[in-house]
Amino acid sequence: MPTLSTADRTAQRTTFSALDAFTAEWRPRIEAALAECLPSAGLPQTEAAGDGCPRTLADAMRYSLLAPGKRLRPLLVLAGCRACGGDLEAALPAACAVEMIHCYSLIHDDLPAMDDDDLRRGNPTNHKVFGEGLAILAGDALLTLAFETLATRIRPAAAAAACCAELGRAAGACELVGGQADDLAEEGKVPGAPDTSLRTAAQSLAALEAIHRRKTGAMMLVSLRLGAVVAGADAAQRGALDEYGRRLGLTFQIMDDLLDVRGSEAAVGKRVGKDAARGKLTFPGLLGEEESLRRAHALTTEAIAAVRSVGTDVEVLEDLARYVVERNH
Amino acid sequence: MPTLSTADRTAQRTTFSALDAFTAEWRPRIEAALAECLPSAGLPQTEAAGDGCPRTLADAMRYSLLAPGKRLRPLLVLAGCRACGGDLEAALPAACAVEMIHCYSLIHDDLPAMDDDDLRRGNPTNHKVFGEGLAILAGDALLTLAFETLATRIRPAAAAAACCAELGRAAGACELVGGQADDLAEEGKVPGAPDTSLRTAAQSLAALEAIHRRKTGAMMLVSLRLGAVVAGADAAQRGALDEYGRRLGLTFQIMDDLLDVRGSEAAVGKRVGKDAARGKLTFPGLLGEEESLRRAHALTTEAIAAVRSVGTDVEVLEDLARYVVERNH
Repeated sequence: MPTLSTADRTAQRTTFSALDAFTAEWRPRIEAALAECLPSAGLPQTEAAGDGCPRTLADAMRYSLLAPGKRLRPLLVLAGCRACGGDLEAALPAACAVEMIHCYSLIHDDLPAMDDDDLRRGNPTNHKVFGEGLAILAGDALLTLAFETLATRIRPAAAAAACCAELGRAAGACELVGGQADDLAEEGKVPGAPDTSLRTAAQSLAALEAIHRRKTGAMMLVSLRLGAVVAGADAAQRGALDEYGRRLGLTFQIMDDLLDVRGSEAAVGKRVGKDAARGKLTFPGLLGEEESLRRAHALTTEAIAAVRSVGTDVEVLEDLARYVVERNH
Repeated sequence: MPTLSTADRTAQRTTFSALDAFTAEWRPRIEAALAECLPSAGLPQTEAAGDGCPRTLADAMRYSLLAPGKRLRPLLVLAGCRACGGDLEAALPAACAVEMIHCYSLIHDDLPAMDDDDLRRGNPTNHKVFGEGLAILAGDALLTLAFETLATRIRPAAAAAACCAELGRAAGACELVGGQADDLAEEGKVPGAPDTSLRTAAQSLAALEAIHRRKTGAMMLVSLRLGAVVAGADAAQRGALDEYGRRLGLTFQIMDDLLDVRGSEAAVGKRVGKDAARGKLTFPGLLGEEESLRRAHALTTEAIAAVRSVGTDVEVLEDLARYVVERNH
């Protein structure tokens, strides 16, 4: 847990009653909905006339999608929907879709050709268990399933199409995948990538923010937007949710970087200090730990101010913003 | 080109006038539409505040999507739409979407962890040019772009959602990705995959057909279906198109296997004889060349009979069926 200044400490809360109640009610339903979306394994691969989903592929998808997780993005979908006065039950397929995208991106990011991680949430990464080929395919299948889930389970059709359009943009070449490509380039893993050692500190910070706005921020933003689409939110509500979401996403990444520096391996569930060890661009590396934390708290205050204009039922989103800046794992 | 028996030879045509005219008119429009769907590269990765699509990612997507190709699947979308009396212009985004899926699946299939190919259509494969990490991301981005394209460019929204649902199913864990996973297992690249050497010939043939029905057939089938969705086809038309599409897909794969045995490297544009060299299950390997060819011709006759019940404007689809069985590259 990062050290807080005295001023920050007074603002710190140890309980998040609205968020806790919301999570207790909805996280089990998210888990159940995710399990229900997964393809049931077809005949085993020994059977000749295999149809349906091959068993090992279904196992690989299930291994990562149902691994214990905070389900932050699905909770954002539902909390965004509630803030806009929508029916949360109707938003559950969208909650599942954003988690599938998040899960696929982790599986692919962990591959040897990318970040080459062997631990994720304290467990062996997908390719360590199922091999690289099947890990690539499990990611592809989860990415595809996200869109199929939206298209077949969100009603009416106009909302389904709007959700697919929003998710496609946020998960695509200009956002999620683009951020990962820039991240690869920063690590020198893209042929012909430019020499980044000549950049000023300000340029490095802008590059870091651009990467995380796309890698992390875009998916948090679109989670809120899908909730808003299902709720039939108006333009003012959508705009305010966007303001909130942009700040939440950046705060989340700053805190992730801080946790990498300061957390214990047991608490974080992945190797810590690894970012620094490979010279990866991080907020504490560029700004120092204290300034990074100050910035995270300022963003949180702005996020909470923005979300209060969405509606009256925004306590969960307020708690979520505070949780992100105060979490220690 | 496979040797034909005398009876087959009389049925062989050397020109496909309806298909040729259709291709001459629509293939350039497909090429233009594909180029237009691609993200324009954003700021170069040297620029700190990069937004939009990173240049190298855009290059990698463009390299594979705009590589010369027959555009068979997009032409099937448009020909299916015409057969059902639809507006071909309105179906162009769907034609692009199926090509994006096809292209992504080739990029990922060619990776070292999968088929490990270094040539595709006579050119170096994506990962040979851009590296494995970026090739994985280019595939992910094209897969995502396919759904975004359908969701934002197919009208009305109900048709867009129906297209996303159909494509998601066909490209997902039970079809395209599932077929590839079974293919990997056949090659012993999945941990714990069963020993296939104990199977009977009939079981091997059933396994081979199941793989190709999903790897190749499902995408050809969904191409026709997307054309039908855009055209607002009725259930009888959709059923007849399905009958046609299933046979077309299987014929396509039988001929692909035959070309692998018999074609020249120059004509096929990829290594030939490679399937046999790695003991891969193939139709000529299981049935012999003559029986494989006989089966392909019988399927073609059935496909043509089925498509004649769709409507009056089915000459392009008839020619396509004949083309698939008579092509030599």
